[in-house]
Amino acid sequence: MKELLYGVAYYDEYMPYDRLDEDIRMMKEAGINVVRIAESTWSTHEPQNGVFDFSSVDRVLNAMHEAGIRVIVGTPTYAVPTWMAKEHPDVLAVTARGPGKYGARQIMDIANPAYLFYAERIIRKLIGRVCGHPAVIGYQTDNETKHYDTAGPNVQLLFVKYMRDTYGSLDEVNRLFGLDYWSNRINAWEDFPSVVGTINGSLGAEFAKFQRKLAADFLAWQAAIVNEYKRPGQFVTQNFDFEWRGYSYGVQPAIDHFAASEPFDVAGVDIYHPSQDELTGIEIAFGGDMTRSLKGRGYLVLETQAQAFPHWTPYPGQLRLQAFSHLASGANMVAYWHWHSIHNSFETYWKGLLSHDFKPNPVYNEAKTIGADFARLSGDLLNLKKSNLVAVMVSNEALTAMEWFKLPDGRTYNDVVRALYDELFKMNVECDFIQPSSDRLNAYKLIVVPALYAVADDCLERLNDYVRGGGHVVYSFKSGFADERIKVRASEQPGIIHEACGMTYSMFVTPNRVGLKGELVAGMDGETRAESWMELITPTTAEALAYYDHPHWGEYAAVTRNRYGSGTATYIGCMPGAAVVSRILEGAVREAGLGGADQELAFPVIARSGTNAEGRKIRYYFNYSGDEATFVYPHGAGIELLGGAAVASGQRLELAPWGVLIIKE
Amino acid sequence: MKELLYGVAYYDEYMPYDRLDEDIRMMKEAGINVVRIAESTWSTHEPQNGVFDFSSVDRVLNAMHEAGIRVIVGTPTYAVPTWMAKEHPDVLAVTARGPGKYGARQIMDIANPAYLFYAERIIRKLIGRVCGHPAVIGYQTDNETKHYDTAGPNVQLLFVKYMRDTYGSLDEVNRLFGLDYWSNRINAWEDFPSVVGTINGSLGAEFAKFQRKLAADFLAWQAAIVNEYKRPGQFVTQNFDFEWRGYSYGVQPAIDHFAASEPFDVAGVDIYHPSQDELTGIEIAFGGDMTRSLKGRGYLVLETQAQAFPHWTPYPGQLRLQAFSHLASGANMVAYWHWHSIHNSFETYWKGLLSHDFKPNPVYNEAKTIGADFARLSGDLLNLKKSNLVAVMVSNEALTAMEWFKLPDGRTYNDVVRALYDELFKMNVECDFIQPSSDRLNAYKLIVVPALYAVADDCLERLNDYVRGGGHVVYSFKSGFADERIKVRASEQPGIIHEACGMTYSMFVTPNRVGLKGELVAGMDGETRAESWMELITPTTAEALAYYDHPHWGEYAAVTRNRYGSGTATYIGCMPGAAVVSRILEGAVREAGLGGADQELAFPVIARSGTNAEGRKIRYYFNYSGDEATFVYPHGAGIELLGGAAVASGQRLELAPWGVLIIKE
Amino acid sequence: MKELLYGVAYYDEYMPYDRLDEDIRMMKEAGINVVRIAESTWSTHEPQNGVFDFSSVDRVLNAMHEAGIRVIVGTPTYAVPTWMAKEHPDVLAVTARGPGKYGARQIMDIANPAYLFYAERIIRKLIGRVCGHPAVIGYQTDNETKHYDTAGPNVQLLFVKYMRDTYGSLDEVNRLFGLDYWSNRINAWEDFPSVVGTINGSLGAEFAKFQRKLAADFLAWQAAIVNEYKRPGQFVTQNFDFEWRGYSYGVQPAIDHFAASEPFDVAGVDIYHPSQDELTGIEIAFGGDMTRSLKGRGYLVLETQAQAFPHWTPYPGQLRLQAFSHLASGANMVAYWHWHSIHNSFETYWKGLLSHDFKPNPVYNEAKTIGADFARLSGDLLNLKKSNLVAVMVSNEALTAMEWFKLPDGRTYNDVVRALYDELFKMNVECDFIQPSSDRLNAYKLIVVPALYAVADDCLERLNDYVRGGGHVVYSFKSGFADERIKVRASEQPGIIHEACGMTYSMFVTPNRVGLKGELVAGMDGETRAESWMELITPTTAEALAYYDHPHWGEYAAVTRNRYGSGTATYIGCMPGAAVVSRILEGAVREAGLGGADQELAFPVIARSGTNAEGRKIRYYFNYSGDEATFVYPHGAGIELLGGAAVASGQRLELAPWGVLIIKE
Repeated sequence: MKELLYGVAYYDEYMPYDRLDEDIRMMKEAGINVVRIAESTWSTHEPQNGVFDFSSVDRVLNAMHEAGIRVIVGTPTYAVPTWMAKEHPDVLAVTARGPGKYGARQIMDIANPAYLFYAERIIRKLIGRVCGHPAVIGYQTDNETKHYDTAGPNVQLLFVKYMRDTYGSLDEVNRLFGLDYWSNRINAWEDFPSVVGTINGSLGAEFAKFQRKLAADFLAWQAAIVNEYKRPGQFVTQNFDFEWRGYSYGVQPAIDHFAASEPFDVAGVDIYHPSQDELTGIEIAFGGDMTRSLKGRGYLVLETQAQAFPHWTPYPGQLRLQAFSHLASGANMVAYWHWHSIHNSFETYWKGLLSHDFKPNPVYNEAKTIGADFARLSGDLLNLKKSNLVAVMVSNEALTAMEWFKLPDGRTYNDVVRALYDELFKMNVECDFIQPSSDRLNAYKLIVVPALYAVADDCLERLNDYVRGGGHVVYSFKSGFADERIKVRASEQPGIIHEACGMTYSMFVTPNRVGLKGELVAGMDGETRAESWMELITPTTAEALAYYDHPHWGEYAAVTRNRYGSGTATYIGCMPGAAVVSRILEGAVREAGLGGADQELAFPVIARSGTNAEGRKIRYYFNYSGDEATFVYPHGAGIELLGGAAVASGQRLELAPWGVLIIKE
Repeated sequence: MKELLYGVAYYDEYMPYDRLDEDIRMMKEAGINVVRIAESTWSTHEPQNGVFDFSSVDRVLNAMHEAGIRVIVGTPTYAVPTWMAKEHPDVLAVTARGPGKYGARQIMDIANPAYLFYAERIIRKLIGRVCGHPAVIGYQTDNETKHYDTAGPNVQLLFVKYMRDTYGSLDEVNRLFGLDYWSNRINAWEDFPSVVGTINGSLGAEFAKFQRKLAADFLAWQAAIVNEYKRPGQFVTQNFDFEWRGYSYGVQPAIDHFAASEPFDVAGVDIYHPSQDELTGIEIAFGGDMTRSLKGRGYLVLETQAQAFPHWTPYPGQLRLQAFSHLASGANMVAYWHWHSIHNSFETYWKGLLSHDFKPNPVYNEAKTIGADFARLSGDLLNLKKSNLVAVMVSNEALTAMEWFKLPDGRTYNDVVRALYDELFKMNVECDFIQPSSDRLNAYKLIVVPALYAVADDCLERLNDYVRGGGHVVYSFKSGFADERIKVRASEQPGIIHEACGMTYSMFVTPNRVGLKGELVAGMDGETRAESWMELITPTTAEALAYYDHPHWGEYAAVTRNRYGSGTATYIGCMPGAAVVSRILEGAVREAGLGGADQELAFPVIARSGTNAEGRKIRYYFNYSGDEATFVYPHGAGIELLGGAAVASGQRLELAPWGVLIIKE
Repeated sequence: MKELLYGVAYYDEYMPYDRLDEDIRMMKEAGINVVRIAESTWSTHEPQNGVFDFSSVDRVLNAMHEAGIRVIVGTPTYAVPTWMAKEHPDVLAVTARGPGKYGARQIMDIANPAYLFYAERIIRKLIGRVCGHPAVIGYQTDNETKHYDTAGPNVQLLFVKYMRDTYGSLDEVNRLFGLDYWSNRINAWEDFPSVVGTINGSLGAEFAKFQRKLAADFLAWQAAIVNEYKRPGQFVTQNFDFEWRGYSYGVQPAIDHFAASEPFDVAGVDIYHPSQDELTGIEIAFGGDMTRSLKGRGYLVLETQAQAFPHWTPYPGQLRLQAFSHLASGANMVAYWHWHSIHNSFETYWKGLLSHDFKPNPVYNEAKTIGADFARLSGDLLNLKKSNLVAVMVSNEALTAMEWFKLPDGRTYNDVVRALYDELFKMNVECDFIQPSSDRLNAYKLIVVPALYAVADDCLERLNDYVRGGGHVVYSFKSGFADERIKVRASEQPGIIHEACGMTYSMFVTPNRVGLKGELVAGMDGETRAESWMELITPTTAEALAYYDHPHWGEYAAVTRNRYGSGTATYIGCMPGAAVVSRILEGAVREAGLGGADQELAFPVIARSGTNAEGRKIRYYFNYSGDEATFVYPHGAGIELLGGAAVASGQRLELAPWGVLIIKE
């Protein structure tokens, strides 16, 4: 990127009356310098099979160009026109819930050739038409692409072929997936049943992996088409999204972000998060750290909230805090979904920067200050580089495994990921995300591994090597339990990593009013409960940091640390509360020789930093609370970019409620 | 009506043994003077296709006539015989949940011609046979008719034709319903998808309106057939029911009572309500006010509870209280569903006046006193007229709109209606119900408008005119927000009525521990929370009666009142608790120059009144509690009809627990 | 049986590597003397249609025989192979939820002839092959057999034929089942609709009864086939299971244990129960008393838990306590499901005696002590005989009736059964279970009858006779309410038994903060609430033990006792709390002249006893708590078998936490 992008999604097609000139006038006033268009309106651009009408695209491109606003054009493939569903009902995905019904977006079978034929045609028509337009800086393929649970007969057949290609023989499949159980054994390829009803978690998880592959393949196919048209200086991106719990929560189950981001020039993402009294910055940082990690560089926030839901409409100051929070994670673009609130259909209460009345409002007015600051500070804040020494290892396979085998209290993989990530965030330890297959383990001093339930042997061996060579790892319970096909390891548990961890267990139970005891929790009255799960750990060479406080299980360790080679491996056998997790991670950070002045601060005062293109250190300080905060600035003298004041090392600084300071050192 | 009717539904067909003579003897003893028959037993009267057997009808008619008990005959069309479902499976409605299954009542497609053919034939056979019988005083068409969610392919096709007839062109449909959104645009009539899967609230709501029209058309069709047979002095009615929450709760979503009641001579209804400690009289008054408003005159309570469910079996005195409560709202008939408790099938625990043992029981014994009083006082209590000056404006379209766009805490349209109606009831302000299309606004001094979410421009303009001309209106939040197709108004909010209300808002949020402050709530400690919803109101000419008590939203008004022309418009921007609603309505009643002696009383002492045929004022006083109550009678001297005592103005009167007094002034 | 069996289910087919010799070595070490095999692995034994491979069966049989471990061979019919589902999709049961999907076990239509053809063939192949093997001591047919909700078109047709065979004419069916209601009348056999959608509880319950008959017929058919191969000394058994609420809770709804156990030599069962702090012994005793009652003699616990779920992994001592608890109810076999924890598929967290690592663990180590004790004490503990004088009368028909007509708070038949059974258990009153059709009423002094909602006249008359002749009965509410087709009796309630009970009621209500008052609850402050249901009882000749404490219902009795002939009949009109139930049952036990020294003890100290083959009294004392307990041994001198110490009458004995003592008198 050459400058910070401040944008909105813009839908000329949805307007109740012609607003283009007035909208552009108001955008300019707010410093909006990019819009994203066209990704949702296939039926407008192709009103009938083979009949095309790009007039709304043309007029928006021309008007934006005239105003100096750049445009990202989306391929409109994630929402299919009525004519297609009527002419070819089988483009609608058959899922485990039955045949599809027309209406929503993201309801098609991404493996259906009729759909693919029409998708390719509209992509070529649209991108071929706009690629030479001077307003266009890039393309988004599809939108929030996932596999949409497609599981119809054709997908089942593809899956059988995938299984044969992958495993060769049914004997191998039966063995690896344990199909003798409950008479599920398959003895002829023709007998392979639809896995929609399977109770075999190994097989079900392999199908989920196959579905994620379909989604990634679909994106790669689109990117290749768009790349044929891409001009120098233009980019192709994709808008990834996260596990959705009413907001962006965690690792995405229905597509593998690492694999799927491969063919793109730049990673894009949408991040939606709780706001008002619940604004913590965690989801912004989580989504940002994840997306930055995909390609190891700056990314685009293609969508985030302006007013959005009634429970998200920001308090004064929060829109600014949010915008700079994205930059602090390495974003080069912050764009709102969307410019104007929609008057019909479904997302009426997902409001844009403008209300339904298109009038300036407090949120829009605050956006104007952001636009101005982005323009003024673009040179300082663009292309922030990070060299984090801590990584969190995440895995789609582990996530799916824990969907099949949930924790007794219903917690899932992402709950464990977040329990660990959130504490790192709150103690101001910035991190990257990596996958188990990563070949860059040695780039980090500390790797945090939440619930790595299903994983191949060689990844665990690599982690053992990493510790032996001086790395530090924190594992949670369940790590190493099963192989990549969710076959539980028949060896000692935790599988393979017990070597580096210096402990083992063969029994696990559900905690019921179980506390912790021992050094780790010294002085912590209350709040030391083991939750969700407890493995009854027997240390071999490890030190027990905590034991269970229970009349029958009190002899077993709950948390251990082992020196192994030149590193340490910490193992957490249960889900402790946040305070204990924090203490464990603090210890690990200390062991890893990390921790510095920013780690003396703590939530709600959050420090994030990086290096800009000139090689200058840029330090963000955020106050995620409605109360004023102060802190002593611990780094070298610099200038506070928003206010322009000089800042001395050791100076006490004030953060307004929901305030932000940016210091260039 | 010529006399008060006291009745029961009677099913000779369900009897475990021949009880007709003994039942009639017991009915006579209880003063039962009317029975309703035949509406549920098609398969008994037409055991095979085209084979008829009306022997149970004949014998009941003859025996009742001999005993001087009148009969209302129902058309048995709401429950189809087994032979029809087997011969023509497509008479079962296909709904969004899939194909129908035989078993329950109300499962047929009311647009299916096979069903209509058979329905017409049984109606003509039955009504043609009984119309000349001297026992018959009237007819009920079908029962609790609704659209039963019918949404199969034939209904979808009818809907497409309805859309073309209504809107002419698809361009118009696309524009009005916002179909460009998510590629839902329809560019050829053949492409019109089934709306069963639609996510477009505008289109979905239009389909619901179309379904309600199917139900009203069906009833009109039946009424026309029955009218061919009706003799002078006989009437045709329909048994309407309300939104069901385990009892009759609010406006009926699946048929428009106002439109559907058009072809009938008299409105009929069933009203079921909480009882025992939860008996408040509100549902009786709500259902009565609504049904009386349909045709502006007396109505029939065709069904209400005797013993019914185990949690409704009345305490001593409650059956009397309930019966006279119906009369006080203008009912000319009170009938129980049903005479005897049923021994098989489904409604075994919906008990009748008699238990399964057919023996006299405490509830039956109390009914005997009611029957005697009805007979004795019929001349005084029949045909009670009301000239209410307060109306509540309700709308099926607004109800459906809020099903699509629920309040964040799940509250629905009827929750808002009831929140306002209940407080009017409790402060003894009697009211009518009107629809937004009413041309009788000026008959009222005060109109209360709950959540009029979706409504045509001209209705809102008429309301502005009404205020300008001296009327008083109380609006709740959401009123005027969208047009009749749920397109949110792009003008200032609240749409159109902001003119009369003298305020506007462009942001709304979910309240989270938000109180109210200001004049309106002076002295109310606690209980002033804003719930469900809050619009951030900026008064223009209005006076702010209350503001939000919140660190960030405290500058915005919550409740406003505006003088506009000669009237006032009050706007409530959030859902306050009952006490605050009560205060707002009290103020509005005062502004409207209403309020009198009965409004000094309050729940649980409830006053309701009207004028009888002789033009004498009849005043009911009810005690909806298990404790004795006293009050000073504030009106002119009269006679208490139940006890026969003279009553002087200003006399202190006693109400027994669950007691009732009726004073003829 | 000739000796106590201590066993495990063993699946050579599921092993991740060859473990047979090592497993047998470890089994021998633990005293395991029997394994159950083959019941889940049809697809392994018949990998293709008509191709058989019993190598895993052969090798296990041979190895076990060599080690002196006996084998029970199961027919593998409850889980169908993939080839069968692919070749004949209609073997999958169509249920009320729609067509079946391949994956789980127990998904087939047990009335489907293709399934039956293949089932017979595999049974004959497998049993014919193994019957002569010296390791085989018996057979299990199928597993946890139920009707699996099979309700497809063929089953509907069978049901129509069953109805015609049973009732002869449709007039009779219409009358008995009340089909006139809601036009459900059937006037030609061809019109008989699928009952899948029926709302008629009588018809629905008859279908459920028919489904249970299908399941029992299926088992009888299997047993007849296996009997053709059975050699002298071998037995045929079935593994019954109970209503499942995450553990074995109550009477099984989907098969009639009494009818289905008929063709078997010995009754078998699985019993799973809460553990850790929730281990009470009740489910073990309930399942044991029920299964012993099926054939009136010793039974096999074919499955129970070892480690099982994380919330069941036993505390030290509990595995022993559980094992001897089974013996104390009359079991001759205790077998764990299963030997080893499974590495793939579905039941990964239902752990066996071994963890996934196959290593010795604390639970396995405790099993070793049990195996040793079983071997040592087999002569003393085998074939325990009971001559209980108390019986609990249970009924599948009553259970189904209460599924159709649930109590207002959702409690079901089994909740009432357990409310009464649990108190008998806790007061150390051992009991049998009988059905209403039992001809052995006079074998008991006291019969407890929970909620006998649907029952034929003659059963109730027999109960009246029983009381008249000196028997004692305790009825709960709802008993006698309806006949065997759930037609509510039109006579006085409770139907027929009101004669012996000396009371009647015609109204019933839902209790809402209703207490009890009267002699029965004297001195019980608090905890005397009527829950779920209350019948408003008027005693005729009965004594009222308690009345309702309520302003309006206070005149009605809640609990009555009547002397009738030489016996007494107690009637409980509501669901009281446990303490009141206990008091009522104590009174009835006293009236019946029962009660002795063991009844002075109470939970958590539980006494169970019987007579062994030598005619010696064997007395078990259990401590179902984590605290030590002591008691005075009240019987004749004997020897404590586990420790070997002599015990004197009147000696104070100590029970360790979760401890057990066994005294041979």
